[in-house]
Amino acid sequence: MRPVMKLMTVAVALWLGSAVVHAQSWQMPPDEQRCPSKWGAGDQRGSGNLMKAETVLRAAKLIKTGEVFELAEVLSPDPKESFLNGGRTYSIYTKPSIPKPNTRSENEELVVTELGQMGTQFDGFAHQMYGDSFYNCFKYDDISTRSGFKKLGVENVGTLMTRGVLLDIAALKGVDMLPNSYMVTPEDLQQALAKENLKLEPGDAIVINTGWGKLMGKDNQRYERTPAGIGVAAGQWLAQQNPMLIAADNCCIEVRPSEAGYNLPVHGMMLIQYGIHLVENLKLEGLAGAKAYEFAFIVQPLKLKGATGSTVVPVAIR
Amino acid sequence: MRPVMKLMTVAVALWLGSAVVHAQSWQMPPDEQRCPSKWGAGDQRGSGNLMKAETVLRAAKLIKTGEVFELAEVLSPDPKESFLNGGRTYSIYTKPSIPKPNTRSENEELVVTELGQMGTQFDGFAHQMYGDSFYNCFKYDDISTRSGFKKLGVENVGTLMTRGVLLDIAALKGVDMLPNSYMVTPEDLQQALAKENLKLEPGDAIVINTGWGKLMGKDNQRYERTPAGIGVAAGQWLAQQNPMLIAADNCCIEVRPSEAGYNLPVHGMMLIQYGIHLVENLKLEGLAGAKAYEFAFIVQPLKLKGATGSTVVPVAIR
Amino acid sequence: MRPVMKLMTVAVALWLGSAVVHAQSWQMPPDEQRCPSKWGAGDQRGSGNLMKAETVLRAAKLIKTGEVFELAEVLSPDPKESFLNGGRTYSIYTKPSIPKPNTRSENEELVVTELGQMGTQFDGFAHQMYGDSFYNCFKYDDISTRSGFKKLGVENVGTLMTRGVLLDIAALKGVDMLPNSYMVTPEDLQQALAKENLKLEPGDAIVINTGWGKLMGKDNQRYERTPAGIGVAAGQWLAQQNPMLIAADNCCIEVRPSEAGYNLPVHGMMLIQYGIHLVENLKLEGLAGAKAYEFAFIVQPLKLKGATGSTVVPVAIR
Amino acid sequence: MRPVMKLMTVAVALWLGSAVVHAQSWQMPPDEQRCPSKWGAGDQRGSGNLMKAETVLRAAKLIKTGEVFELAEVLSPDPKESFLNGGRTYSIYTKPSIPKPNTRSENEELVVTELGQMGTQFDGFAHQMYGDSFYNCFKYDDISTRSGFKKLGVENVGTLMTRGVLLDIAALKGVDMLPNSYMVTPEDLQQALAKENLKLEPGDAIVINTGWGKLMGKDNQRYERTPAGIGVAAGQWLAQQNPMLIAADNCCIEVRPSEAGYNLPVHGMMLIQYGIHLVENLKLEGLAGAKAYEFAFIVQPLKLKGATGSTVVPVAIR
Repeated sequence: MRPVMKLMTVAVALWLGSAVVHAQSWQMPPDEQRCPSKWGAGDQRGSGNLMKAETVLRAAKLIKTGEVFELAEVLSPDPKESFLNGGRTYSIYTKPSIPKPNTRSENEELVVTELGQMGTQFDGFAHQMYGDSFYNCFKYDDISTRSGFKKLGVENVGTLMTRGVLLDIAALKGVDMLPNSYMVTPEDLQQALAKENLKLEPGDAIVINTGWGKLMGKDNQRYERTPAGIGVAAGQWLAQQNPMLIAADNCCIEVRPSEAGYNLPVHGMMLIQYGIHLVENLKLEGLAGAKAYEFAFIVQPLKLKGATGSTVVPVAIR
Repeated sequence: MRPVMKLMTVAVALWLGSAVVHAQSWQMPPDEQRCPSKWGAGDQRGSGNLMKAETVLRAAKLIKTGEVFELAEVLSPDPKESFLNGGRTYSIYTKPSIPKPNTRSENEELVVTELGQMGTQFDGFAHQMYGDSFYNCFKYDDISTRSGFKKLGVENVGTLMTRGVLLDIAALKGVDMLPNSYMVTPEDLQQALAKENLKLEPGDAIVINTGWGKLMGKDNQRYERTPAGIGVAAGQWLAQQNPMLIAADNCCIEVRPSEAGYNLPVHGMMLIQYGIHLVENLKLEGLAGAKAYEFAFIVQPLKLKGATGSTVVPVAIR
Repeated sequence: MRPVMKLMTVAVALWLGSAVVHAQSWQMPPDEQRCPSKWGAGDQRGSGNLMKAETVLRAAKLIKTGEVFELAEVLSPDPKESFLNGGRTYSIYTKPSIPKPNTRSENEELVVTELGQMGTQFDGFAHQMYGDSFYNCFKYDDISTRSGFKKLGVENVGTLMTRGVLLDIAALKGVDMLPNSYMVTPEDLQQALAKENLKLEPGDAIVINTGWGKLMGKDNQRYERTPAGIGVAAGQWLAQQNPMLIAADNCCIEVRPSEAGYNLPVHGMMLIQYGIHLVENLKLEGLAGAKAYEFAFIVQPLKLKGATGSTVVPVAIR
Repeated sequence: MRPVMKLMTVAVALWLGSAVVHAQSWQMPPDEQRCPSKWGAGDQRGSGNLMKAETVLRAAKLIKTGEVFELAEVLSPDPKESFLNGGRTYSIYTKPSIPKPNTRSENEELVVTELGQMGTQFDGFAHQMYGDSFYNCFKYDDISTRSGFKKLGVENVGTLMTRGVLLDIAALKGVDMLPNSYMVTPEDLQQALAKENLKLEPGDAIVINTGWGKLMGKDNQRYERTPAGIGVAAGQWLAQQNPMLIAADNCCIEVRPSEAGYNLPVHGMMLIQYGIHLVENLKLEGLAGAKAYEFAFIVQPLKLKGATGSTVVPVAIR
């Protein structure tokens, strides 16, 4: 984005009395404008830097009843039970022992899967690149190997525990599930917060309910192709809130098909430009049903060296 | 164990003024004596039933500074970096996009591994059987399939958050690392608790430090073959404390080689007889170094349908 | 089969004025009646013993024009291109190098598949057991491991080159493709031979055309569920001809659903009782279209140690 | 290459009035000089075009005794049994059935491996590129996908049956095994032919015995790092003979380390410039021991769609 355009964008936003940014105004900034990231040259943690003792303490204080909401789907090779992104596989092969009388024996399983990008999943920063440039302008040729990335691997993340806030857009609109390809706007997000009298704070886990999660394993094709989700403007607004992560109960956080002229822009914006993690494919029926809007959010990405992400099983606790 | 023997065992234990149980006195009880489990016929959760709102609250209250200790090793296919149990593999294959100018693209990875029993790992109840009988006497022919188990799968567990207590046996003995094949006794455990003026409570995550975790990726062969760990008597005593799980910084929780006449008896005792989860291959240098003896322990086993366990990345938070 | 039963079977067959064998008349003989196999105690090669210098020479003499017919399907992960047996997978992941100017680099691929039983496939003797007993009464507990079988592995087979004879049952019946679940009889086989004035010889590769091969990748479900194929009686008759292998352009050689009271009996009969190899999922349009009834048949099962079979790419040459 | 030998090579080349073969003189020709290949624009078969009815007939006529020599190693995950190229894996996981009395059941196996480049292997043309350009100047961006190549896949090859000629360089030098990193020269090849009074013909399978094959599974490290093999000059000379394929009992056909200034040049020369297939890691003890210098060579690369090569089990028959 050229400086003049940046000024114009800000001007437009101010003029609208809100953070609305005209969709087409966002483009991936060139390397020299977005690097080093605000977390410093060489930083690999991005929004993970917001995970600090204070953040943990703030989250712990939200645990008042001990009620736990499991937010992950079960992983099964059966597409009638799990959502498997197009072209990815999840296979599990039992390696059984043969039972022998009066003998202890043990069973294992071999799993073959795109583990970093499977099921309820946590996106690391090696997942996305623009040209050959990643978050903080790490370059493809410098960090890629056949068995993982030398930088930005998901093993750098570790457990995240922070305040979680549910923005229930489906409830805001009075529906069980947002319509096909509904594009969530900054206004939607702000109204959902206002409705519950909540404010976002830096370091939050922002959890967006579209109602689409219930399609996983039920209608995977629709779930993958035409989900409701945030648009570019909502993405820009969320990034300005300085969250630790953005999570949603849909495929890919963002609306699909993407807005005209874009291809999954929010992925690029968050993972490349801003270094903000995404958590996709949540199950939010329980949380939304309980009207739990503020909670401790805990997620433990696996320490897969050099991986682009991790399947995860986050929880909300209040 | 026949009733008379059970009485004798108790008598001996009382006579010794301690919970010492003569090693050979424990045998896997026949099905009719151990089933249904204390959690009821058909129960699949065992010690996971101790995960309740009160348990979570008790743990949350232990979070006073927000300090987080990561307890998992990084998973790498390189045995110089990770411990890979003999005969198991962990392979990661990057599925890269080819960088294209001014284009967002994405990377993934295929992972092939015994995911349920890999790295820092959480043992579910389908992992172990005696003859053809599992925890709560589920039978092999009834629950096994080629792609997971119909019952006792690790997807039934979910996030566990509970009070964690560190029993630092290495520190108790004044060593950095217990000797080869040192068998931890009930007295060791009790003295470690007394030293820190702590008591175990039902539902605790009991974390045992042997000092052996530092060998992972350094001397995998020694780590796997001759670890210090608990013996049968210590296992029996621990089971009586009604823990949610038992964790340690060694391969397999228990001493190896196993005591004469046994083959990994503590695995059978915990996972088949009592239904108590195990967490193996922890990294405890940080926790023990910080003398953090009481904390919130949080672990999120993956929801792999029908799997025998899960690689995990637990944390201790205080 | 006990001698008396064998006589009765013959009597019944004669009485019917044909080689019809009453379906229920065949049962897997008990171990003591079928072992050692006719190839001797401890033999692992079964019909592969018929591969001898003379067999090769006889086949070589049938090569008169040098015309080669490829009989295998292409293996693709796309079910619109390949037949993948229910529950099996074939995945191929390119491991690319990233092109660098003026530099030689190389590409590979990772393949994950049930390689022994995938695509056009050669069945070895570890593939089938009755109770716990294999061909020549090798026992499951004695030969099974988690990474292959100690005996009967397909690595024992090696290249087979022998006279091949096409029995075109579809042509015999004047159809392009036999009807759903059509059971090929001994009479069908004999008439197909007589039509071309051919006789079977010991050690032949008997190739049966049902016309079903064209469904592979077109209608996999029908192809797998209701193929035309040989019945028990035809299987018995074929086994008496002492072939090196039996091959066909269908899923599983034999008719499906199986005759009443049986479950894939021809598999048990050939691979367990007689030790005769099977080759499944051939593409025979070219061979049948060229009316090539006698030829050299060449197949090279992979030397996968301890495997139950091998994907193969056989040819017929005349 | 020692200077004197280099001079001799030049002299011979000049004297032969043919393409100068000065070692350092060979460089990968630019695309415009090497494309289209001599087989025509768009051709994907290269030297496979030499597989014709006449070639097959010529080979069949060499079968005089029916004696078969198996030339492939057994594939095992155990590096004490098989050669596994550095960084590649071969895993086999039995998928057993559990034996049930009086019931037929079946076993399979899952195999995970770089199947196109594993064990005794056949190199297809997608295996190698120079910059982004393959054989016949197919371009990386045009033909690569995450699951195979759109062009040049090994499925295009099919069974090759042709005259095979053994060039036993170890025997020529009077040794059981050539020394470490011995570079086979054009003179060596010519002398080995002359010794047996043989001439090469277009379309031959040229099989080179270095004696190194016996190290597979015995000393894999030495086998991979310092094999004897052909140099650039020998490669150039062989290419001029218009063979169907070049095979050898070593890792990679060519000498390692590569000649100064090169990195596996023969791979580039054969697979990119000339489109000549390579077959690596042969077992030639039997063939060389029997002094079988002329034979039918038969190899059946798997039809793995889009793959860079195939593990194979070739034979020589005489």
